[in-house]
Amino acid sequence: MHTEHHESTSLTPCVVGVDFGTLSGRAVVVRVDDGAELGTAVHTYRHAVLDRELPDGTPLPPDWALQVPGDYLDVLRHAVPEALAAAGVSPEQVIGIGTDFTACTVLPVLADGTPLCELPGLAGRPHAYVKLWRHHAAQAQADRITELADARKEPWLQRYGGKISSEWEFAKALQLLEEDPELYELTERWVEAADWIVWRLCGTYLRNACTAGYKGQLQDGSYPSSGYLAALNPDFAGFVIDKLDQPIGQLGARAGGLTAEAAAWTGLPEGIAVCVGNVDAHVTAPAAGAVDPGQMVAIMGTSTCHVMSSDRQGVVPGMCGVVDGGILPGLWGYEAGQSGVGDIFGWFVRTGLPASYAEEAAALGRDPHEHLTALAAEQRVGEHGLIALDWQSGNRSVLVDHELSGVVLGLTLSTRPEDVYRALLEATAFGTRTIIEAFETSGVPVGELIVAGGLTKNALLMQIYADVTRRPLGVIGSSQGPALGAAMHAAVAAGAHTDIQAAARSMGKADRGVYQPDAERAAAYDRLYAEYRLLHDYFGRGTNEVMHRLRRLRAEASA
Amino acid sequence: MHTEHHESTSLTPCVVGVDFGTLSGRAVVVRVDDGAELGTAVHTYRHAVLDRELPDGTPLPPDWALQVPGDYLDVLRHAVPEALAAAGVSPEQVIGIGTDFTACTVLPVLADGTPLCELPGLAGRPHAYVKLWRHHAAQAQADRITELADARKEPWLQRYGGKISSEWEFAKALQLLEEDPELYELTERWVEAADWIVWRLCGTYLRNACTAGYKGQLQDGSYPSSGYLAALNPDFAGFVIDKLDQPIGQLGARAGGLTAEAAAWTGLPEGIAVCVGNVDAHVTAPAAGAVDPGQMVAIMGTSTCHVMSSDRQGVVPGMCGVVDGGILPGLWGYEAGQSGVGDIFGWFVRTGLPASYAEEAAALGRDPHEHLTALAAEQRVGEHGLIALDWQSGNRSVLVDHELSGVVLGLTLSTRPEDVYRALLEATAFGTRTIIEAFETSGVPVGELIVAGGLTKNALLMQIYADVTRRPLGVIGSSQGPALGAAMHAAVAAGAHTDIQAAARSMGKADRGVYQPDAERAAAYDRLYAEYRLLHDYFGRGTNEVMHRLRRLRAEASA
Repeated sequence: MHTEHHESTSLTPCVVGVDFGTLSGRAVVVRVDDGAELGTAVHTYRHAVLDRELPDGTPLPPDWALQVPGDYLDVLRHAVPEALAAAGVSPEQVIGIGTDFTACTVLPVLADGTPLCELPGLAGRPHAYVKLWRHHAAQAQADRITELADARKEPWLQRYGGKISSEWEFAKALQLLEEDPELYELTERWVEAADWIVWRLCGTYLRNACTAGYKGQLQDGSYPSSGYLAALNPDFAGFVIDKLDQPIGQLGARAGGLTAEAAAWTGLPEGIAVCVGNVDAHVTAPAAGAVDPGQMVAIMGTSTCHVMSSDRQGVVPGMCGVVDGGILPGLWGYEAGQSGVGDIFGWFVRTGLPASYAEEAAALGRDPHEHLTALAAEQRVGEHGLIALDWQSGNRSVLVDHELSGVVLGLTLSTRPEDVYRALLEATAFGTRTIIEAFETSGVPVGELIVAGGLTKNALLMQIYADVTRRPLGVIGSSQGPALGAAMHAAVAAGAHTDIQAAARSMGKADRGVYQPDAERAAAYDRLYAEYRLLHDYFGRGTNEVMHRLRRLRAEASA
Repeated sequence: MHTEHHESTSLTPCVVGVDFGTLSGRAVVVRVDDGAELGTAVHTYRHAVLDRELPDGTPLPPDWALQVPGDYLDVLRHAVPEALAAAGVSPEQVIGIGTDFTACTVLPVLADGTPLCELPGLAGRPHAYVKLWRHHAAQAQADRITELADARKEPWLQRYGGKISSEWEFAKALQLLEEDPELYELTERWVEAADWIVWRLCGTYLRNACTAGYKGQLQDGSYPSSGYLAALNPDFAGFVIDKLDQPIGQLGARAGGLTAEAAAWTGLPEGIAVCVGNVDAHVTAPAAGAVDPGQMVAIMGTSTCHVMSSDRQGVVPGMCGVVDGGILPGLWGYEAGQSGVGDIFGWFVRTGLPASYAEEAAALGRDPHEHLTALAAEQRVGEHGLIALDWQSGNRSVLVDHELSGVVLGLTLSTRPEDVYRALLEATAFGTRTIIEAFETSGVPVGELIVAGGLTKNALLMQIYADVTRRPLGVIGSSQGPALGAAMHAAVAAGAHTDIQAAARSMGKADRGVYQPDAERAAAYDRLYAEYRLLHDYFGRGTNEVMHRLRRLRAEASA
């Protein structure tokens, strides 16, 4: 439990934003007129992620990742009142509450919202729990979903760059049907946790436009047809009508008023505005002030998520998805991503940092990343002689292939750890540039980059991104972008701002153009980027399928 | 200084072998009838390698590597008498002395053998010293030598796989001429250290058939023509006649009798047989009992040298050289090599071993290589999912390109240090298989591998080589192969054995077929090797010149 206290006894209206992350939930109390973050509190989920066994000890197969829905309610009970207390704000000042969630995080419930895992006798059934976004055990189903859509030329497929992820609603539901048909039968609604939490707060179940589009394959008002679903599995034909479809709530809209029960949990006044659900990455865009077409927000942490609104509708090969109103009502919302970014740097430090470097870092009072970054910052572009491919965790966007793997090329007996580290930093920047170019060549312009997330603290990395992308780089002005973004949506739902754009102008925070591209470095990076693209296409587009063959051999050897 | 003592008061005849390495010289006293190594002593060169400055402080440019010839004589003065004492052998038992040397290690001398660096007033002139084999500052000259030979279709070029090395006699001499013409003028003989030391021992200057062929471009009795040399540089036209040419001594032949002066240095009887000079790798072949055609000896240390005799003359693309009688009189001697082997493993441990691994190794009483090897040995072929290219120090044979660089491909967030380490071990084995296949496809069969050198102690590495090459692997039975080989040649020169083959049968030592290929592992390695070759040709044969471009960018960035 962690709380921060800001002195404030302002009587101006406030909103509460609650960010439901992978391991904890964070509440923040925000002033609606200027976005001041007055108090915050974090509550850690008691069951964290279930990836080895259920609470009763039932073991889980590989690639499973579940959560316990009651843990989310505990965030409402603890983090919200603590954030209020930390803010020194009285409940009466709060005019609305907004939430954001990881996605696609999805659970089976009864018609009244009761999670199946809470029903008598079902606590030992894995499929009764929440499937977390990074539950990857539905890959076989996802492959069939994509192949069939491709074979039938389903029009919605191109909206997802040509591939449906195992993380999304249909793949996870089909896995439920095929592995535990009895539970599938019991499931009355298949609901995003983002919407379930709003349902708990206001008693109304609306599907938010964001996850319905990006994770639920709702395009132009329609889901995949029952004919298509029947071809996947005859018992899946009625899935949309029987378990999924629900009225859509636009982002920033009022879903309902806070129920007496939820008011008791949170200490907030009954009846205040509860905002339609939303997704962590997507609410971060307005929190960073990015509400104009072409402002791309990169949320950079263990992985990177790119979100951008545009007035142009384009088919961008290999993006995660494009959804009408998926980020801001009235604009096309685009999402793309890189599966491994901070995770790659962390892997390198964990597996490749020599003892002498660890000791020197400790002596200088630096963490290993700071130390490697400081050493890497001393060199000129190209001085290390290396080029790397940033696919240690696969490629999420453009190639959309999680069986690709990482490469380091150019190694000599003089190559040092800081050289490889810098090459890895650069490789992720090249990955972002590849995504930007995919947008631009598809007729969707990208003007400016605004960065949020934990990696913003690495100034070398930020400068590399500015140089590599030849774009000014802004940095979000909050360390709790998603919670702030959720609060901003609450302010709109409560009527304090007319729309998200207006809320962003008043409450969003970004330092624009903090990093400017340097012409000389950018020119040198153009040469390295050309090498990256050559290898990217050679290994990623089928000329040399070595990475897939190595994976097969690895699987056979491990069997 | 290091001596070992073996109890022996045998009165049977003995010989002394002296191995002149890069940093020290080693003498060994060997019984001629059975090759028993009775005593040994090592003497370290006082000046080691001059690669930053001369003894008087004169600075040296990058890529220079010089030695002081007097240091070699100190080995005769110290190591030889100490080895005799350690052996408990009286000088009267010693019937001959043989030597081997690094090559091409070459120096400018007067007609009486006096090194120029010992002349008054020349101690501050870099070009007056011995140029060690790894003096790499004559690359520009070597490039011109190759290009001109190629343009003129000089017939000798194919005997060196199409490329003349910057390490060899002509490139180093041309550098001398062009950078210090006054010293070039003073140079009366341009002599291999391998021959200079024999000249010091017996007063006779013969060029040994090995270095004359491999390093001095003597083929079919002729050196490169004066017309060719004049086209390189008009002042170089007379180089062969004026400074290089000299009667050739066959390997194992008597060059002369030990002089009184050398007898005083060594404590050996005046007049005993002094054998023609030779090269460390090449004398190791008979020391490992490899005197039949098709027995390939791999001397594996920081780098690997492959030597093999054959009754077939072939043009093997990218080998180091083929010389008539270059290893054994009467057979074609082939040499090939890998620039980085143990050096690559050492680089990985130095730059990529995490503190936790270093601590665990220490707790288990293992050195880091033993520890990584033990961990790597637990996996099945292909389990790490990696493929590497072993070009961290360039590629000496087959591709003959020192501007290539290393690659590691297949990295994931689960990749561990022992995975990369094993992939590097395997990559060097794939490099050896590539060389073997180059021989075989050129009509020069390779039957068996016998390994010598420091890396023989790594049983996993040895087994990988057997599996990857699908060949039984023998291991030399001596830890001082070159000195033993030099002693065996001395025994032939002294008439104790009729020829090297006979000496090898009596004195050579190898455990044959210690490692046998395993069919299942070999089949899995065939798949990995296919990936290696695909990347080898893609990056090494010009399809993607990324490694050369990265080097150019690195040079520009460092400038």
